Amino acid sequence: MNTHSSSEPLLQRRRNVLSANYFHHYDEPLHAVRAQGVQVWDKCGRLYLDCYNNVPSVGHCHPHVLGELTRQASLINSHSRYLDENIVRYAERLLATLPPEIDTCVFVCSGTEANALAYDIARVVTGKAGVLVSDGSYHGNALAVSDFSLFEGKHLDANCFVRSVPVPSENELNTGCKSETLGYKAAIQATATVESLAGSQHGLAMLIIDPIFDAPGIFTAPEGYLRELSKTVRSAGGLVVIDEVQSGLTRLGDNMWGFMDSGIVPDIVTMGKPMGGGYPMAVVAGKREIISAFARNRHYFNTFGGTPVAGAVGNAVLDVIEENEILENVSVVGAALKAGLLEFENTFQCLDPVRGKGLFLGIPVITDKVTRRPDRTTAVRLVNQMKRRGVLISACGKSGNVLKVRPPLIFSKENANQFLETIHYCLEKNEKTAHEGAT
Amino acid sequence: MNTHSSSEPLLQRRRNVLSANYFHHYDEPLHAVRAQGVQVWDKCGRLYLDCYNNVPSVGHCHPHVLGELTRQASLINSHSRYLDENIVRYAERLLATLPPEIDTCVFVCSGTEANALAYDIARVVTGKAGVLVSDGSYHGNALAVSDFSLFEGKHLDANCFVRSVPVPSENELNTGCKSETLGYKAAIQATATVESLAGSQHGLAMLIIDPIFDAPGIFTAPEGYLRELSKTVRSAGGLVVIDEVQSGLTRLGDNMWGFMDSGIVPDIVTMGKPMGGGYPMAVVAGKREIISAFARNRHYFNTFGGTPVAGAVGNAVLDVIEENEILENVSVVGAALKAGLLEFENTFQCLDPVRGKGLFLGIPVITDKVTRRPDRTTAVRLVNQMKRRGVLISACGKSGNVLKVRPPLIFSKENANQFLETIHYCLEKNEKTAHEGAT
Repeated sequence: MNTHSSSEPLLQRRRNVLSANYFHHYDEPLHAVRAQGVQVWDKCGRLYLDCYNNVPSVGHCHPHVLGELTRQASLINSHSRYLDENIVRYAERLLATLPPEIDTCVFVCSGTEANALAYDIARVVTGKAGVLVSDGSYHGNALAVSDFSLFEGKHLDANCFVRSVPVPSENELNTGCKSETLGYKAAIQATATVESLAGSQHGLAMLIIDPIFDAPGIFTAPEGYLRELSKTVRSAGGLVVIDEVQSGLTRLGDNMWGFMDSGIVPDIVTMGKPMGGGYPMAVVAGKREIISAFARNRHYFNTFGGTPVAGAVGNAVLDVIEENEILENVSVVGAALKAGLLEFENTFQCLDPVRGKGLFLGIPVITDKVTRRPDRTTAVRLVNQMKRRGVLISACGKSGNVLKVRPPLIFSKENANQFLETIHYCLEKNEKTAHEGAT
Repeated sequence: MNTHSSSEPLLQRRRNVLSANYFHHYDEPLHAVRAQGVQVWDKCGRLYLDCYNNVPSVGHCHPHVLGELTRQASLINSHSRYLDENIVRYAERLLATLPPEIDTCVFVCSGTEANALAYDIARVVTGKAGVLVSDGSYHGNALAVSDFSLFEGKHLDANCFVRSVPVPSENELNTGCKSETLGYKAAIQATATVESLAGSQHGLAMLIIDPIFDAPGIFTAPEGYLRELSKTVRSAGGLVVIDEVQSGLTRLGDNMWGFMDSGIVPDIVTMGKPMGGGYPMAVVAGKREIISAFARNRHYFNTFGGTPVAGAVGNAVLDVIEENEILENVSVVGAALKAGLLEFENTFQCLDPVRGKGLFLGIPVITDKVTRRPDRTTAVRLVNQMKRRGVLISACGKSGNVLKVRPPLIFSKENANQFLETIHYCLEKNEKTAHEGAT
């Protein structure tokens, strides 16, 4: 309550000058003034464990990333119409982490810009306009990109240039049905939609899809789904675009990129926020013949895309990932975190099995084990309780009932234990309150 | 030639990994490795005077901007869902430079994003889709934004949601006709287009227009033009959006913003590249009732828009502008530069009168004083000659024949003299070559 009152003057000034779009996380807003690694301090000196932020991918204010930012920003930060070693070296290193077919980079500033450019490329290359997305997907906030972001329960016109294909429902995910079966089933269900869009006046330009379904509640694509769906899309003449903004850069713990075990080579891969460890940079990587076909037909220049500083910072993030065996860390700590959470599932009435992979987990909060209805109210209460106990998470999903755990990639086992202890405490407290309320 | 050869290995690596969109300025590419103020050094230690770059608005690597970047990036660089003083203070200071009706900010990362958001706002607020632009205008590189960027001689369908209104032609500008007469004339000519778009199936969402027409060859809007055109647009129900990406932040030398003497208060002002002195940040500022109507209807969040670092860097740029009387500098140095160039006009056969204002000048290169045909070849040769003599400019305009002079805002009289001496030398050399060629 103290935090809240002392924030009031700043909150009021903020309301006066910023758009109403600027809402804030938590009942009592967090006035964050300092951060280091996975730790965040508020104005009153309170310490929080960051289990939410993916933009500071290798941790807040990482000394190496900060050092390279400062070093290059002191030298020169011009645009890509001059020659510069940083961005070339970065492109070389980044492409070396991808299948050899993906051999060409274009640099932009945000995931939204990356997805917008991917669509522009797909339109030019295919001559078509139709976009296929998965149910409830989020791909960005600008213009056409927001047209194909469906995460707020947006309704699509039957004649719209955007169509959506189903992903497995929460119920299906909970049946214990084999992942591969679900994947095939969902991909087959999608075929009619692919063909109908391809046959419409829009035609089919691209499928854009995440390897982990974030906005609808964090679950990975079942086996076979991406592969089978991609086949259908390519037969219908569309490009396959994989959105790695959330799932990329070791986030899922098994590979550098989320699509890598899916058995496909995308035409285009888009990468976003975490690439610069906090610095605004993003990437479109694709097959040369596709990017070149676009370049022949369209002028494209992005002032801030691929600057020397973007290159230096991107290289620094890759350095940290390589030198600190971040992939291994995500895999090990993510597995420990998931195992801990799975144990809680039997103890607490309000938990469905945790979903997701690596350091990207979703904990569905439900009313009870019988009806298993999504319980947004309890999820939001837990998020705020956790924050008061010094742990930052948020809630997401179609029903807003899935606790979203997505810490910086350097999250340690000790951090995981602190998270588990805190959520255990809050779940217990919550159960007690519910019980007292019921008696 | 040496520079070129030593750049060859890097150029080749660049070609291998980057898209073909990444062409470079100058016959012999500039491999820039260090910059300070208006000075740029290449890999071989050669020094250049920067008369082209507007992104490092207060000069390359300005110590105060760099200091604030480093300071804030060492503390925390999170997103706008947490409370933060930097961005609130920046919004307050920025709005204080604008008419009181413009009282609300939304932060984005680039001018393209700013214009895309302005269009999104206009669509939501008006319920219409049509966009009115000026002939040959450039407003960005992404999706719908590029649809209303016409700078590459793009042809518009009669039924397109984008229509263009005329700006005075080069011939009209050269008649010596009174600016106000030209302005009224052009605005009246536009009326039929405004009404036709408003009456089409698209309706009229907005006019988006620059106070200085950059892409078509650098000239300011004649008196009365913006005012009369805005009246017509508002009567037809459209919003008036002023694109200050190029003309803003004292660039034109008479005001902080380019529209300020035009007698209008825009509904939305978009600001871009130069706001962060090299750091990717941009702004949409508008009237509260309009921004709020958008916020009620649409989710909008921009991860990198309005971060603590963006706020700190934006504040640092404003500090430099205030403390160093940058507006006064632009006005005085810009006038001296223009006066110097006007003197050359009589001496050299290939020059038409210099255009533009403040530190944004365009020097049209022509074949001769009689036919006055645009001479792109000579313009490009001059750009490369100037570079070899250590001065960086470029060429723009519909015919590619207008030398573009747009240095950092801290450009001094001594810098202006160096520029004038160098261009004089190159013009003389060029004339001599032409003469020798003719005899």
